[in-house]
Amino acid sequence: MPETLELLRRRSSVRDYAPDPIPEADWETMLRLGQQAATDATGQLYSAVEVREPERRRRIAHLAGDQEHVRTAPRFLVVCLDVRRLRLLLEHRGERLGIRPFVSLLFGITDAALFAQQLSVAAAALGYGTCFIGGVQNHARAIAGELALPTGVVPLWGLTVGRPRARPPPKPRVPLGHVHHIDAYRDPTSAELAAAYETMKAATRSGDWLHPLRKYFATGGIMEAREPEFRGLLGDQGFGGDEAAGTQP
Amino acid sequence: MPETLELLRRRSSVRDYAPDPIPEADWETMLRLGQQAATDATGQLYSAVEVREPERRRRIAHLAGDQEHVRTAPRFLVVCLDVRRLRLLLEHRGERLGIRPFVSLLFGITDAALFAQQLSVAAAALGYGTCFIGGVQNHARAIAGELALPTGVVPLWGLTVGRPRARPPPKPRVPLGHVHHIDAYRDPTSAELAAAYETMKAATRSGDWLHPLRKYFATGGIMEAREPEFRGLLGDQGFGGDEAAGTQP
Repeated sequence: MPETLELLRRRSSVRDYAPDPIPEADWETMLRLGQQAATDATGQLYSAVEVREPERRRRIAHLAGDQEHVRTAPRFLVVCLDVRRLRLLLEHRGERLGIRPFVSLLFGITDAALFAQQLSVAAAALGYGTCFIGGVQNHARAIAGELALPTGVVPLWGLTVGRPRARPPPKPRVPLGHVHHIDAYRDPTSAELAAAYETMKAATRSGDWLHPLRKYFATGGIMEAREPEFRGLLGDQGFGGDEAAGTQP
Repeated sequence: MPETLELLRRRSSVRDYAPDPIPEADWETMLRLGQQAATDATGQLYSAVEVREPERRRRIAHLAGDQEHVRTAPRFLVVCLDVRRLRLLLEHRGERLGIRPFVSLLFGITDAALFAQQLSVAAAALGYGTCFIGGVQNHARAIAGELALPTGVVPLWGLTVGRPRARPPPKPRVPLGHVHHIDAYRDPTSAELAAAYETMKAATRSGDWLHPLRKYFATGGIMEAREPEFRGLLGDQGFGGDEAAGTQP
């Protein structure tokens, strides 16, 4: 199916949407096809809260970093890890949930990502675009409050969806040898690290990949700042404290 | 693109592969299209170790629960969260990695899942099938040893890939209202829980969804047993101890 391959090859994050609403039928198709993604042991450990109410959307967009498209995209989801539904399902039949915090994180984040990714491919096949919003983690606890997320449900990222006004070209990726190892993990050489910077130049505004890497991932960067918020969130939602500590008393 | 929608609708996990090898060109197409999946802040926090050496494959298949197709599938990957490459990239330019354990788990598992899911769609478009192998978590520490995974790299799940000898029909999912919420999270009612069991019957051999849910997710189940192994693995790979404890001393 060359069309499908071409669609995957051209994938890029869309941040500029036409204002046209997404018809319910298309939207339901995307959600239902997202559900058909793989899920370990039929668990389906995720939920997606669609934010429709304009004032709530405005507040969440602000909390997630004030990107315009989070406020204005025709549809916006907050995708969550969800072990609560599974707990209710088990209790409905007289059983107790046994999955614990770290394995919940592993399989819940995985299920949520597979759902959102398959939804994104379905959206592209219908002519729409999507963008993941990691900025939801900047004030994730306040966002959990906005959406009345109970114990067992953790917001992971947002997803904006709409008809692209502009579809940016696909961004480069590190050379395949960096991510594909054979039989054993192999560190990139110094020359390979330099080659990755060279390849990734075109993914940046400044022409130097170090700039976004430093901004997000270095000491003092955005990802480091998210750690206490995410830890706090996990505590609020029932994944913290002694239980999360696991082998600790 | 109706073909793409149909491909997503028909998706199911394939566990019965023809022995034909996957040509290098097809395999490279899948890996490269997987790389084009979204990744937060261009981080690409994943690696995939392909297990080719037959004895190593046999040992890993045994550790992952002795599923025949893990041993015999034409290709088999262990997909990993990887913050090590990012650390080496930053150090190459005189910076230090700042991302900490819980945010690493969130964004690393997400990146790995988006890669693996997009690879799976590419595989399907080329006529192949795939299956995620959560059983890698049963003995994840031994598997990390088999693949010489260093600090900062955590095995998440396996992925078998090959030409399907048989492609099972798609499995049902919980009713859409269970996973799609509007503006606020809403618990399913008792009638809705019963409806989910009814719908999911067809996903089971026994005709009762409680059986797999209990086996995997209830107290005493497989997921609970994986917790100490996964906690230990995170410790081994540099995500444990005081650092993982975050706000703790």
